[in-house]
Amino acid sequence: MMNRRMILFRIGQMLILESVLLLFPLIVSLLYGEWGSLTAFAETIGITTVLGVLTILLIKPQNKVIYAREGFAIVASSWVFLSLFGALPFFISGEIPNYIDAVFETVSGFTTTGATILTDVEKMSKGMLFWRSFTHWIGGMGVLVLIMAIVPTDSGRSMHIMRAEMAGPVIGKLVPKIKDTAKILYIIYLVLTVFEFVLLLVGGMPLYDSAIHALGTAGTGGFGIKADSLGSYSPYVQWVVLVFMYLFSLNFNLYYLMILKKFGTVFKNTELWVYTSIVLVSTGLITWNIFPLYGNAHDSIRHSLFQVLTITSTSGFSTVDFNTWPAFSKAVLFILMFMGGCAGSTAGGLKMARVMILGKTVIKDIGHLLHPRSVSSVKFEGKTIDNTTIRSVGAYFALYMFLIFFTFFLISIEPFDLETNFSAAVSCVNNVGPGLSKVGPMGSYADYSDFSTIVLTFAMLFGRLEIYPLLLALSPRSWFTSSNKRKAKNIKLKA
Amino acid sequence: MMNRRMILFRIGQMLILESVLLLFPLIVSLLYGEWGSLTAFAETIGITTVLGVLTILLIKPQNKVIYAREGFAIVASSWVFLSLFGALPFFISGEIPNYIDAVFETVSGFTTTGATILTDVEKMSKGMLFWRSFTHWIGGMGVLVLIMAIVPTDSGRSMHIMRAEMAGPVIGKLVPKIKDTAKILYIIYLVLTVFEFVLLLVGGMPLYDSAIHALGTAGTGGFGIKADSLGSYSPYVQWVVLVFMYLFSLNFNLYYLMILKKFGTVFKNTELWVYTSIVLVSTGLITWNIFPLYGNAHDSIRHSLFQVLTITSTSGFSTVDFNTWPAFSKAVLFILMFMGGCAGSTAGGLKMARVMILGKTVIKDIGHLLHPRSVSSVKFEGKTIDNTTIRSVGAYFALYMFLIFFTFFLISIEPFDLETNFSAAVSCVNNVGPGLSKVGPMGSYADYSDFSTIVLTFAMLFGRLEIYPLLLALSPRSWFTSSNKRKAKNIKLKA
Repeated sequence: MMNRRMILFRIGQMLILESVLLLFPLIVSLLYGEWGSLTAFAETIGITTVLGVLTILLIKPQNKVIYAREGFAIVASSWVFLSLFGALPFFISGEIPNYIDAVFETVSGFTTTGATILTDVEKMSKGMLFWRSFTHWIGGMGVLVLIMAIVPTDSGRSMHIMRAEMAGPVIGKLVPKIKDTAKILYIIYLVLTVFEFVLLLVGGMPLYDSAIHALGTAGTGGFGIKADSLGSYSPYVQWVVLVFMYLFSLNFNLYYLMILKKFGTVFKNTELWVYTSIVLVSTGLITWNIFPLYGNAHDSIRHSLFQVLTITSTSGFSTVDFNTWPAFSKAVLFILMFMGGCAGSTAGGLKMARVMILGKTVIKDIGHLLHPRSVSSVKFEGKTIDNTTIRSVGAYFALYMFLIFFTFFLISIEPFDLETNFSAAVSCVNNVGPGLSKVGPMGSYADYSDFSTIVLTFAMLFGRLEIYPLLLALSPRSWFTSSNKRKAKNIKLKA
Repeated sequence: MMNRRMILFRIGQMLILESVLLLFPLIVSLLYGEWGSLTAFAETIGITTVLGVLTILLIKPQNKVIYAREGFAIVASSWVFLSLFGALPFFISGEIPNYIDAVFETVSGFTTTGATILTDVEKMSKGMLFWRSFTHWIGGMGVLVLIMAIVPTDSGRSMHIMRAEMAGPVIGKLVPKIKDTAKILYIIYLVLTVFEFVLLLVGGMPLYDSAIHALGTAGTGGFGIKADSLGSYSPYVQWVVLVFMYLFSLNFNLYYLMILKKFGTVFKNTELWVYTSIVLVSTGLITWNIFPLYGNAHDSIRHSLFQVLTITSTSGFSTVDFNTWPAFSKAVLFILMFMGGCAGSTAGGLKMARVMILGKTVIKDIGHLLHPRSVSSVKFEGKTIDNTTIRSVGAYFALYMFLIFFTFFLISIEPFDLETNFSAAVSCVNNVGPGLSKVGPMGSYADYSDFSTIVLTFAMLFGRLEIYPLLLALSPRSWFTSSNKRKAKNIKLKA
C-alpha cells in the first residue's frame, strides 16, 4: 500500500505554509483598508492553519520512506489542495462568486499560466490582485521545493519530489545536498525578483504595480491589474518586463554557474543560444510583418519582442492585442506556444531542451537510415543522452500532444470556433495564458461553461507538473495495490 | 558519389511506365470524343516516351548496386518527375491554365490527398477527370512497387525502395521474394477495386462514375466529379464507398492472411481492432452531436460514419459539408486527421501502428517511472519492438509535427484565418484532402497564392513518402559526398 500517512503529512505541512503565505495579501488588504478581502484572507488562514496543524499532529508517519510513487502523489495532491484552499479568499470575499471559477483562477496562478475568467480585472480589490500575482511567484519555482528549502530537517529522500515538481527533461543537482540546491535556486529567484521590482520602481511605476509585475514576471505567470495588461505603461516599464521575461525563461543553473564565475560553461550552453536565436528570428519576422501597423521601428520591435517573449517564456503579459495582428504573426506566436522556455526555468511549455533532443534524434536517425550499422548516439550539452532518455522524451512529446488534443476534444463541446478552442487548449497545457480569438490577450475564459472550466483547470495542472505526477495520482492502481505485491515489484529509490 | 546513373535509369523506366498509364485516359477521351484532351494526352505520351527511352538507352548503369541512399533518391525523384510530367495534360489542354496549379492537382492525385484547386469540377472533360482519379489509384500502392511487380527481371536489391515508398513504421515481406510481395499486393489491390466497381454498377451508378469512384476509393484519394462530391448519389452508393474506404484503410497483409485462411492471425490483429474501435466511437459521438440536424437515425449514422471514414482513411470524399457541423463534430474530425489509417494500407496520416507504439511506450514509461530498474519492452502484434524502432517512431512523430508546423508557418503568409491555414497544413501533410473553413469539403485550395500552392505541394509529397526520402533527396550532402568518403562510411545493404 502507498505510504498514505507520509503523503497526508506532507499535505499538512503544505497547508501550514499556505497559511503563512496568505499573510502577505492579508497585510496588503490591511494597508489599503480593504476589510472585505481582509476577512476573507483571515478566514482562509484560520481554515488552513487548523487543518494543517491537525493533520500534522494526528498523523505521525513512523515510516518516512518515500518511493517514486509517493513522490508523485505528494506533488500532485499538494498542488490540488493548495489550489482548492487558495481559491477560498476569492470565493469568500465574493469577488469571484463561482467557486469553480475561483479554482480556475487560482490554478492559473499557481501553474503560472495567467489565463483569467475575470472580465473586468480593474474592479477587483488590491488584496485579491496581490494574492493572484503572488500565486505566480509561489508556483513558479514550486511549493514543495520551497518547503525543502526552509523546513529545518527533512530526510534526504526528496530528489523525486523535486524531479516531479521542477520542469524539464533532466533535473540536475547543483550541489550534493538537495536541500542546498533548493535554497540556492530560491535565493537566485528572490534576488532576480527584487532586482526587477527595483528597476520598475526606478522607472516611476507605483510601488504596488511594481510588486505585482515583478511577482508575475518571475513566475512567468502573466496576471496583470489593468484591462490592457501592460499596454498603458511606459516603454521603459515594458522593456524591463520584457528583459526579465527573458531572464526568467533561462535555465537557472546558468545563474549559479555565473555566481561560480564559470562563464565559459554558460557561454557554451547550446540551449541558451538556440532559444535566444529562435526568439530573435521570430521577432524579426513579426517586426517585418507588423511594421505597417505601427509605422516606426522602435514600437514595432518592442511590441514584437515583447509578444514573442511573453509566449516563449509562457508569461502572458501583453502590450498590444496580438489577436488583431496579421495571420502570419499570429501563426508564429501560435507555433511558439508549443515550445516554451528553457529547462530548469520557471517557464512552461514543452521546453527547449526537449525540442532540441527531439531535433537531434531526428538528425541522427536520418544518418542511421543511410548507414544502418552506424552508432547514433545523441549528445546534449556535451553529454551523451542514453537511449532510455531519448525514448522517454519521445514518449513525453506524444503524451503531451495527446493531452492537448484530449483537452481540445473535451472543450469542443462549447460552440466556439476552432481557433478559440484549440488555442485555449494549447495555451492552458503550455501554461501560456492568452490564446487567440475569444481567449486572446484582451479576451478572457469567462464564457466557458463550468465543465470546460474544470477541464482547462486540469489541463493547466497537467501542463505545469509535466503530466506524469497527476496521471499517476489519478490512477486507482497507485492507491490500491496491495503492500506485498508492491514490495515484490518495487525497488527502493535512493535520493 | 551517389550512383546517379542508376537513379536516372530508374526515372527513365518510370517515365515509360507513365506513358503507358496515360493510354488509359487517352482511351477515355477517345470514347467520349474529347479531342482537346485527347491531343493533350497524346502529346504528353510522346514527350514521356521519348525522354524515357532516351534515358534508358543512353544511360547504361554498369554498377547496379543500390544503397539505402540511392533507394531514397530513386523514390523521391521518381515521384517528383512523375508529377511534373503527369501535370502536362491538364496544362496543355488548358483545363488548368496555371502549371503550378496543375502540378498541385497531380501531386494531390498521386499522393492520394484529393485536395483540389478546381472551383468548378463539373466543367472539366471526362478524360481529365479520369486521369485525375487514375493518379489516385497509381499513387495509392506506389509507382515503383508497380514497376517491381511488372518488370521481368530486376536485381533483388529493392527492399529499400519498397520500404521508402510504402507507408508505415514496419514493412514486412509477405513472401521471401520482394517481387512476389509486390505482385501479391497489387493483385489484392486490383481485385478489391474491381469488386467495388461492380458493386457500384449494380447499384445503378453510371459506368464512368463507378470507375472514377472505385479508383479514388482504392487509393484513398478522394477526387470526385461533382461539386457536392458524393452528396447527390444514392445512400446505397454512399454505403458502398464507405465500406471500401474502410477496407482500403486496413493493412493489406490481412487480406493475404485471409487468402492463406489464417483467420486466427487476422482476428488477433490489434491494430485492426483499435482502428475499428476508434472509428466506431468517433461515429457514435458525431451521430449524437449531429442528430438534431438530420432528425433520423439512418441519415445521422450514415453521414457520421462516412465522414469519419473519409478522414481516417484519408480519402476526402464527402456526402455532406461537415464544415457546417457543430464545433464538437468538427473537432473530432480534425483530431482524426492526424491519425490516418492502418500501416500497410493505401491510407495516409501518421498511421494507427505508430499511434499505438507511441501509446504503448508512454504506458511502459509510466511503469518505468515507478519502478526505475524494471525492464520496459514494448510489444506490438505479439512481437517485441526494439528500442531503436521505438526511438525512431518517436523521432518520426516529432519530425511529422515539425512538418505540419513548418507548412502552417509558410502558408500563414496568406491572409486566411488560422482554422483555414492550420487545417490546410494538417490535411495536406496527412494526405486527407479537405480541411476546415475555406478549404472545407465544399471549398477548394484555389485562393492560395502560387507560393503557398508550391509549399502545400511539397507538404503532400513529404506526407506521402513519410518525409525521409524527400528530405534526403533534397539535401546536397546526399549528392556531393565523395566516393571514397562514402565507401568508408557506408555499408552495403542486403535486400
